Amino acid sequence: MAAEETKEMQEAYPMKGGNGLYSYTKNSKPQRAATDAAKELIKMAIEENFDKEILFSSKTLSIADLGCSVGPNTFFAVQNIIEAFESRYQKHQELNSRIPEFQVFFSDHTSNDFNLLFTSLPQNKPYYAAGVPGSFYGRLFPKASLHFVYTSVAIHFRSEVPKEVMNKNSPAWNKGRIYYIYSSDEVVRAYKAQFDRDMEKFLQARAEEIVYGGLLVIVVGGISHGTHHSQGHGGMILDLLGTCLMDLAKKGIVSEDKVDSFNIPIYHMTPQEVEAAAERNGCFSVERIEDIHHVGSDENNSLSITNAQEFASYIRSGMEGQIKKHFGEEILDVLFDTYKKKIEDNPSIFKSGKALAFFILLKRKAIN
Amino acid sequence: MAAEETKEMQEAYPMKGGNGLYSYTKNSKPQRAATDAAKELIKMAIEENFDKEILFSSKTLSIADLGCSVGPNTFFAVQNIIEAFESRYQKHQELNSRIPEFQVFFSDHTSNDFNLLFTSLPQNKPYYAAGVPGSFYGRLFPKASLHFVYTSVAIHFRSEVPKEVMNKNSPAWNKGRIYYIYSSDEVVRAYKAQFDRDMEKFLQARAEEIVYGGLLVIVVGGISHGTHHSQGHGGMILDLLGTCLMDLAKKGIVSEDKVDSFNIPIYHMTPQEVEAAAERNGCFSVERIEDIHHVGSDENNSLSITNAQEFASYIRSGMEGQIKKHFGEEILDVLFDTYKKKIEDNPSIFKSGKALAFFILLKRKAIN
Repeated sequence: MAAEETKEMQEAYPMKGGNGLYSYTKNSKPQRAATDAAKELIKMAIEENFDKEILFSSKTLSIADLGCSVGPNTFFAVQNIIEAFESRYQKHQELNSRIPEFQVFFSDHTSNDFNLLFTSLPQNKPYYAAGVPGSFYGRLFPKASLHFVYTSVAIHFRSEVPKEVMNKNSPAWNKGRIYYIYSSDEVVRAYKAQFDRDMEKFLQARAEEIVYGGLLVIVVGGISHGTHHSQGHGGMILDLLGTCLMDLAKKGIVSEDKVDSFNIPIYHMTPQEVEAAAERNGCFSVERIEDIHHVGSDENNSLSITNAQEFASYIRSGMEGQIKKHFGEEILDVLFDTYKKKIEDNPSIFKSGKALAFFILLKRKAIN
Repeated sequence: MAAEETKEMQEAYPMKGGNGLYSYTKNSKPQRAATDAAKELIKMAIEENFDKEILFSSKTLSIADLGCSVGPNTFFAVQNIIEAFESRYQKHQELNSRIPEFQVFFSDHTSNDFNLLFTSLPQNKPYYAAGVPGSFYGRLFPKASLHFVYTSVAIHFRSEVPKEVMNKNSPAWNKGRIYYIYSSDEVVRAYKAQFDRDMEKFLQARAEEIVYGGLLVIVVGGISHGTHHSQGHGGMILDLLGTCLMDLAKKGIVSEDKVDSFNIPIYHMTPQEVEAAAERNGCFSVERIEDIHHVGSDENNSLSITNAQEFASYIRSGMEGQIKKHFGEEILDVLFDTYKKKIEDNPSIFKSGKALAFFILLKRKAIN
């Protein structure tokens, strides 16, 4: 059997574990905002799009959070999903006495801090919890074993950096940059092709794991259809980190070669790119696409953090692992200090560019 | 819902995590011997006692290892179980094309080192893996969701020390000892009553979780029916640690009160006591009870380690957590050094007393 054989082929970009200053646990407010914003849409999806036959016939409903990280957002999201199911059962007289048990699978890369996740599980939670290690770009669960799959602020991570952008002999070589938004079309195309390959793996694995009629909810940050990559807020934020690394290279703190060979495995997609991937895959119907505004964001839908130090910590919690691995631990403080200063010098970064988070609801078609 | 609500009420006695000198990973040879010895019996159980109807109707077979610790024994055991199922499918023409997928739940206390467990998972394993944190003296899984449950060298741990043995005003107060085998009948009865309460919780939870016709395999060390507790090898080994603690008390390194209030939450049962618990519970038929000889043991069936240092490390890997919690980390080295010397002075400990590991096969009856 080939179960999970691709798992270790995937690169892992875990959020920083533990409870420290730069931990994901302490720096996950923007992800929480996306979770909150998706709350009502998830309730509606379960109320309107989840097949009644499954509700009738299931003694257990199986839910998975893919890319769950270490909490606490994952617990809020799961609580919301279960409350929505319970409410659906309670609203319909013929279902009222049939409320099933719930099993929740919290999944993330093997390098995720599952020990912290497990010790943080809520007391008296209304479900049986399990942790599942591995990459969601491969199979993680048995066939037709899941009823509701949720993934929030996770599928923007690529399974790996596209190889061409690190190849000096390729037209897609991304010299002097760590991100693609201001790069040549070749670099952008390499990132986009990587996204398409990854999405096909993601959707094919889910198509096998989700029961016919089951739902797949994707919440992710990206850009609007028609917005050029260079105008995306998320991309600007990451590109800015690249300029800090180049500053360190000019000072001789890191080598320029090191910066050239470092690229961030994130792609800021449009909702339409996810829709197109679902259509190519063919196993899912696209039930709903919605922009979601981050709670606390202004009319431009910028991120909810507007304090330079807090913002630098937020970016550090997500990027520290990758940077440490490539450049070594010793550059972390100076790099993120440089980053903080650049933001302080240019506070309009919080308002510039266009940020978008969106919600996509897919339903597993009852065909192969 | 009351799912897992009892979880945090249970005391956890985890094996020492990590890869260090006294880690369970490096000190689990005797447990491996029990796993090896049970191998053929598990194969036979799957061949002869597992319901054909389940084999026909299941697209996924769900297996759980309860008290899995951190490996590597759990992986050998699970591999053996899956090979036995595959062999059963292959032997029968009508089943040959129906080999299902396997999902394996590795379960242990929340304090178990799941991070180590997950990073140690075998490459190309023929199953989907999940970790489930919590005490097996409560519910861990949805109703009727498991087909085969295995627990090895785990149910000798009590969910807590019986309260009476720590109560100065009780006739069951266990003064000057940390174990019950040389204590008054009141102390022995308190341990036995705790075992009976725990077994009822264990069996009731499993009765709910295992499908009708599913199997529950228990492998555990204990004593033979008719052997007095004071003659059990396992008990002698633990009592000896108590005499070392009393030696430290005499030297003023620990207080005698501290030793009085420390008791080891282990009960060395007979196979007949498990059988009686199953009969009281009523949901399982007892299909088989076998003594299993530890691989590498001599004709007296003593443990396979006969080197004092190795033996002290083995005991330390299992006991360090509890002792550290009660007495503090600083006594560990001197305590286990004293222990090692006592064994060196009395090498017959390896041959004295009666050690027994046994295998019990229970089958979930198709009634409630």
